[in-house]
Amino acid sequence: ELQHKLEPMHPADVAYILEALPPDERLIVWDLVKAEHDGEILLEVSDAVRESLIESMARNELVAAAETLDADELADLAPDLPQGVIDDVFRSLPAEEREHLRAAMSYAEDSVGSIMDFDMVTVREDVTLEVVLRYLRRFDELPDHTDQLFVVDRDEHLKGVLPLNILLVNEVEVEVGSLMHTDFVEFEPDDEAEDAAKAFERYDLVSAPVVDGDGRLLGRVTVNEVVDFIREEAEQEQLAHAGLAEEEDIFASVWDSVRNRWAWLAVNLVTAFVASRVIGAFEDSIEKLVALAALMPIVAGIGGNSGNQTITMIVRAIAMGQVQPDAMRRLLRKELGVASINGLIWGGLLGVAAWWLYGSYQLGLVMTAAMTLNLLLAASAGVGIPLMRQKFGADPAIGGSVMITALTDSGGFFIFLGLATLFLM
Amino acid sequence: ELQHKLEPMHPADVAYILEALPPDERLIVWDLVKAEHDGEILLEVSDAVRESLIESMARNELVAAAETLDADELADLAPDLPQGVIDDVFRSLPAEEREHLRAAMSYAEDSVGSIMDFDMVTVREDVTLEVVLRYLRRFDELPDHTDQLFVVDRDEHLKGVLPLNILLVNEVEVEVGSLMHTDFVEFEPDDEAEDAAKAFERYDLVSAPVVDGDGRLLGRVTVNEVVDFIREEAEQEQLAHAGLAEEEDIFASVWDSVRNRWAWLAVNLVTAFVASRVIGAFEDSIEKLVALAALMPIVAGIGGNSGNQTITMIVRAIAMGQVQPDAMRRLLRKELGVASINGLIWGGLLGVAAWWLYGSYQLGLVMTAAMTLNLLLAASAGVGIPLMRQKFGADPAIGGSVMITALTDSGGFFIFLGLATLFLM
Ligand SMILES: [Mg+2]
Ligand SMILES: [Mg+2]
Ligand SMILES: [Mg+2]
Ligand SMILES: [Mg+2]
Ligand SMILES: [Mg+2]
Ligand SMILES: [Mg+2]
Ligand SMILES: [Mg+2]
Ligand SMILES: [Mg+2]
Ligand SMILES: [Mg+2]
Ligand SMILES: [Mg+2]
Ligand SMILES: [Mg+2]
Ligand SMILES: [Mg+2]
Ligand SMILES: [Mg+2]
Repeated sequence: ELQHKLEPMHPADVAYILEALPPDERLIVWDLVKAEHDGEILLEVSDAVRESLIESMARNELVAAAETLDADELADLAPDLPQGVIDDVFRSLPAEEREHLRAAMSYAEDSVGSIMDFDMVTVREDVTLEVVLRYLRRFDELPDHTDQLFVVDRDEHLKGVLPLNILLVNEVEVEVGSLMHTDFVEFEPDDEAEDAAKAFERYDLVSAPVVDGDGRLLGRVTVNEVVDFIREEAEQEQLAHAGLAEEEDIFASVWDSVRNRWAWLAVNLVTAFVASRVIGAFEDSIEKLVALAALMPIVAGIGGNSGNQTITMIVRAIAMGQVQPDAMRRLLRKELGVASINGLIWGGLLGVAAWWLYGSYQLGLVMTAAMTLNLLLAASAGVGIPLMRQKFGADPAIGGSVMITALTDSGGFFIFLGLATLFLM
Repeated sequence: ELQHKLEPMHPADVAYILEALPPDERLIVWDLVKAEHDGEILLEVSDAVRESLIESMARNELVAAAETLDADELADLAPDLPQGVIDDVFRSLPAEEREHLRAAMSYAEDSVGSIMDFDMVTVREDVTLEVVLRYLRRFDELPDHTDQLFVVDRDEHLKGVLPLNILLVNEVEVEVGSLMHTDFVEFEPDDEAEDAAKAFERYDLVSAPVVDGDGRLLGRVTVNEVVDFIREEAEQEQLAHAGLAEEEDIFASVWDSVRNRWAWLAVNLVTAFVASRVIGAFEDSIEKLVALAALMPIVAGIGGNSGNQTITMIVRAIAMGQVQPDAMRRLLRKELGVASINGLIWGGLLGVAAWWLYGSYQLGLVMTAAMTLNLLLAASAGVGIPLMRQKFGADPAIGGSVMITALTDSGGFFIFLGLATLFLM
């Protein structure tokens, strides 16, 4: 009965159901799915679920599933398949497909090549639309996301693109060459997928050609792959921000989860330990004035929050290409201004609170000064860390939040306890 | 000369340049831009930059710019335009466009209506492809992202869709009705844009029809709007996570920035103050054993990090629809397992470190126990907070990170200092 319900479902819907099921039930449902969609479903599920499904399949099942896929799809699946399966599939492919698969597997992750497919329809520039229309009518179906035909010469050099829009609104006697667009967006396989995604967003593209260094047409990128790429990047960033190494099957075993999370906890343990040693250096002062112990986490915490605001804004501006190299001083000046104001307002408020709680206006002044200085430190680091990372070619988005929190924790304790030791002891 | 360079540029490219310029230079370049693209450029820039550009324009310039836009685009711009400009534009529109604008402005933010346009091509089911092709040839151009025609009856009821793919590969004598697809994805204007975005991702759509409650065709959603929506949502989440109220022009004035960030800092100040008062309650213990002051931030910090890992994973799983209501107990059990293991490993390690630093194995045991308990607290809250929010209809993604950090800070201090007071004093 369940099998009957699964039958007419879109592979992406089956994938969705599989994701939501606990492992044992998942494998039961997976067995009920008609084998002909296995390949497409494996493409749609998340990495964690894909691994568990593939583990449950026999080699001949995997080969059969893989053979239903296009070369670009196969390349996406390949990292998760046993080598034997890949070899079998490879042998069974016709020569051109084999070449495509070899190419698709050779492109770096996050390159245009990795999101490219080979399903393009090409025409010559010296034929009329009438001929083109007759040619298209010989297809059983056009590839998905065919919004334009690619105009190539005898050597596969890309001369132009003919949008279906243009094909459909013009008289059939006209030649392709006189209607095709020659100022189109094109990519090379080694371009960053991120840049292609930005071009798709900016110019509202549905497909775009990919050419080699000599301008020969190799394949195309389509908007559905771009959408997946954008969503995956955003998720990756979210996970990385919380210190999860990768997407986690929520029903993963306890051990898998521990492994997925331990690196981040280890890093944080080290930074927390350093901060703890900073405090340890001032134990004499704390012993004399125990109020310091209660107040110091406020200084550290607000510094971390404020620094994260700054760094998030700067990283985002860098990602959008809005930060010119000479903008650093200007941005720093502004962020220091914001920090000064926040330091005086919030630091002042807390200074009054400390005075009121502990009856010492000197303690209040130290609190206000420490808050302001830690916010200035946070602002400098919030501007400086991503800009430095960008300058040295590192991804400005990675690890910035950990670094700034480490800095404002240790720095905040040092500034507050140091000022207290100097002026109150 | 600059004007010459700007002339042939795509409006989205001009918008990009404007974003990257400081305010004064931005307005100089804006004046050089040919007025005919003003409307499209205003649509492309970020909210913050749009405001500054609109402020610099005279009313008649704004009206002229607005009049170049389609109804759906106008509706996007309307919230930033002075009422007088909207009234002028409204009066100048033909009746049908006016109706469209009124409709577009009435839809809620983040609804399908808010990303819908009115540029669809409709055909009847009882005509042949030949007639359709002749009809299309009368257009100057088809609307962007026309990958399918909508088949409607005399009363605008949507009967089916005819993909251009189908139109192009079939013989021209065939009737539309026998080729059109009748199992297509459609939306209503009040559907969530997020759900439409998921359908576009899942089924790889380029456009989809929007119908009213009676099945009458109202408009369509196109993939470029979906891409913008996905990107904006992801950015919104990132900003919210760092406590920025909205996208900030990086060259915004210091005061604008202070206002954009103050709410978050205020919230954090309150939670930090509460944590500080928890510590204050144990000042006697700290005075007797000052090592507690140095060790307590480790317990609190690692709890916060671990809790954020859990909550990020659960929120993401909820967003992907993977968490069934009865999954709570199962997830909780797993997360408590992960927390126990981490508590014993990392807590054990720190216990040994505390023992070695301060020469008291009892202190080490308290440290290990406190770490483990705080990680268990973090795990319970990481599972419980988003599931509770979901249950009560709130967005599980919002504010979870602040709540969990507040809980693990105050909770961590309480557990550690409490255990120390019980067993070490
Ligand atoms: Mg199966
Ligand atoms: Mg395929
Ligand atoms: Mg993929
Ligand atoms: Mg690929
Ligand atoms: Mg494809
Ligand atoms: Mg766009
Ligand atoms: Mg903290
Ligand atoms: Mg202008
Ligand atoms: Mg338009
Ligand atoms: Mg918008
Ligand atoms: Mg709109
Ligand atoms: Mg549009
Ligand atoms: Mg998809």
